[in-house]
Amino acid sequence: MTHGGEIAFGPGEEFRFIRRLIRRFGSLAAGIGDDAALIHIPRDNMLAMTTDTAVDNVHFRRDWLTLDEIGYRATTAAISDLAAMGASGMGILIALATPPESRENLDALGDGIARAAVAAGVRIFGGDTVRSVVLSLTITAFGNTRDPLRRDAARAGHHVYVTGVFGGPAAAVRALLDGTPVLATWRDRFVNPHARLREALWAAGRGARAAIDISDGLLADAAHVAAASNVQMTLDLDRVPVMEGVDPVAAVQGGEEYELLLTSAIPLDCDAFRRRFGVSLTAIGSVSDGEPGVVITSRGKHLDIEPRGYDHFRIA
Amino acid sequence: MTHGGEIAFGPGEEFRFIRRLIRRFGSLAAGIGDDAALIHIPRDNMLAMTTDTAVDNVHFRRDWLTLDEIGYRATTAAISDLAAMGASGMGILIALATPPESRENLDALGDGIARAAVAAGVRIFGGDTVRSVVLSLTITAFGNTRDPLRRDAARAGHHVYVTGVFGGPAAAVRALLDGTPVLATWRDRFVNPHARLREALWAAGRGARAAIDISDGLLADAAHVAAASNVQMTLDLDRVPVMEGVDPVAAVQGGEEYELLLTSAIPLDCDAFRRRFGVSLTAIGSVSDGEPGVVITSRGKHLDIEPRGYDHFRIA
Repeated sequence: MTHGGEIAFGPGEEFRFIRRLIRRFGSLAAGIGDDAALIHIPRDNMLAMTTDTAVDNVHFRRDWLTLDEIGYRATTAAISDLAAMGASGMGILIALATPPESRENLDALGDGIARAAVAAGVRIFGGDTVRSVVLSLTITAFGNTRDPLRRDAARAGHHVYVTGVFGGPAAAVRALLDGTPVLATWRDRFVNPHARLREALWAAGRGARAAIDISDGLLADAAHVAAASNVQMTLDLDRVPVMEGVDPVAAVQGGEEYELLLTSAIPLDCDAFRRRFGVSLTAIGSVSDGEPGVVITSRGKHLDIEPRGYDHFRIA
Repeated sequence: MTHGGEIAFGPGEEFRFIRRLIRRFGSLAAGIGDDAALIHIPRDNMLAMTTDTAVDNVHFRRDWLTLDEIGYRATTAAISDLAAMGASGMGILIALATPPESRENLDALGDGIARAAVAAGVRIFGGDTVRSVVLSLTITAFGNTRDPLRRDAARAGHHVYVTGVFGGPAAAVRALLDGTPVLATWRDRFVNPHARLREALWAAGRGARAAIDISDGLLADAAHVAAASNVQMTLDLDRVPVMEGVDPVAAVQGGEEYELLLTSAIPLDCDAFRRRFGVSLTAIGSVSDGEPGVVITSRGKHLDIEPRGYDHFRIA
C-alpha cells in the first residue's frame, strides 16, 4: 500500500482536472498526489511492468467508440500485457494528453479507465495530465510474479493453446470502414476485450511456460514467440475458434484480440478452463525444432498467409 | 535483473524501429522484448514509480531544442520525480508517439534519452512506439526507497532548503519568445537539467523529511508541499539563489528547474553538500503552524506574488 487518502494539491487548472478525475476514481485511487507512487511488491516476487499508448485516429476513432470505451480498451490493452507474463495485476499509472477544449467531456474517459481497472482488480496509482492537439492515453500497468510466462520459453514438444474466439475486432473494424452491418458479437469483442489475468495464472500453475497476448494478430504474435524461443510453431487453422461470419484467415490476421496464446509441455484441461472462466481454451498446434517461425496448415496442407491483414485505420 | 539479452522480434516496421532504438541503447537496455519488463525490487524497499509526458509545441519546441535535448529533458523530468521521493533510480519505460515521416530522424531522441539514463544511473527496460500526428514522449521512471521523502511530511519547525540556482530555464524561454539574447548560463540550465537523485539521498540520510522537485516553479511547488502537509511555509526571497540577469520574482515563478525543495527538522550542512555535489544547498525559509500556504518575504516585508508567471509556450 502507498500512503492512503487524497493529498491536497495547490491551485491551478491542471490540479482541478486531476482532483476531478481522482474523485471519479473514488476508492480505486491509491496514494495519488506525491511526486511518485509508492508500492510494496510481495516478497520474492518480481515487478512486472509495461506501458502502452493509444492515440486518437491511430488506435481508436471517436466516431466508432464512446470515450468510456476508449478508456476501457486502452487500459485493458496495457493490463493484458501483464496477463501475458502470468503476473498478478497491481495497478496502473495514467498519462493523458488532451486537447484543451475536451477536458470538460473527459469524465467518461476516466470512467472507462476505472471500469477496466475494476474488471482486472487493479488500482490507480497516479499519472500525468498534459495538453496536446491530439487525445492520447499512455497506460503503464504493473503487477508481480514469481514464475513469469515468457515469450522465449516455448520448447519443442509443447502444445499450443489459445483462449477465446477470434476475428471479432477485425471484422468490426472492417465493417465500420466499409459501412456494412456490424454484428453485435463482433462489436462486443471490439469494445469490450478482457485482460486474461486469472486465466494466465491458472495456466501457469498447470504447466504453461510461454505466453503472449494477441494484440498484433494470432499469426503475428505466434511469430514473436517462435522468434524469441527460436522454435517452429505449427498451427492448424481448422482448430482456431472463429466468430460467426468471419473468415478464418482474417481471424488469425486480425489484431486487438487480447486473448492469450500459451504453450505447455503438460496438456492443459480445456474443459476445466471453460467451466472455471466461461471462456474457451483450445489446443491449436504444437512446437518443434524446425526452422524458426510459424507454419499454418488446413486439412493437412501448408497455407501461405501473411501474418497480418490490412493495417486498418492507422495513419499514413 | 530481468532476463538479459536482446530478444528476437517478429517482422514488421514497428519492430525494425524498436530494434534500431535498442541497438543504440546498447548495454543500457535491459530485458526488452517480452510483454512486460521484469524487475527485482530490493527486499524491504518500496517501488517508487512516476510517469511524465512531454508533447511537441506544449512542453518543447523543435526550433529551440535538438531532438537529443528533447529526449534528455523529458527523461530527466521523469527521473527527477524519483529524486523528490528520495528514491534510488532503477529504470525507465519509454512510450514514443512519432509522426511517421520523422522515424528515420529519431536516433538523436533515443540518444538524449540514453544520455539522461546514464546521467541518472538507470537502465531502459522497454516501452511502446506508436504513430501519431504529434511527437510526444511519455517516460515512466521507477526506483526503490525504504524511507521516502514525502510532500505531506513538512512540519512546524522544519527548515526549508533548495538545491541549485533559480531562474535560468524561465529566462531562456522568455528570451527565446522575445527574440532577445539568451545567456549561455540560462540556456544550459534550460537544456541540461539534472535529476538530483544522489543529493536527495544525502539529504534524506541527514534528516530531510519532505521534498518536491521544482517543475511548476519554486513558489507553486512550495504551495503543493504546504497544502499536502497542511502547514505554512515562509520563504525569504532575498535568500533564494538566482541566476545572473534574472529578476528574483521571475526566478521563483519559473518552472522546469528540476531542483529540489527540502524540509528538515535537523539543520543540513550546506557547505558539505556543495563540496560533495558541486551544487549549492541554501536555507531559504521555515515551516510553521500558521494558515496553510506559502508566505514570501523580502527585507522583512510580505510580498504578494502569483505562484506562477506566464504559462509560456503552452497551447491555448
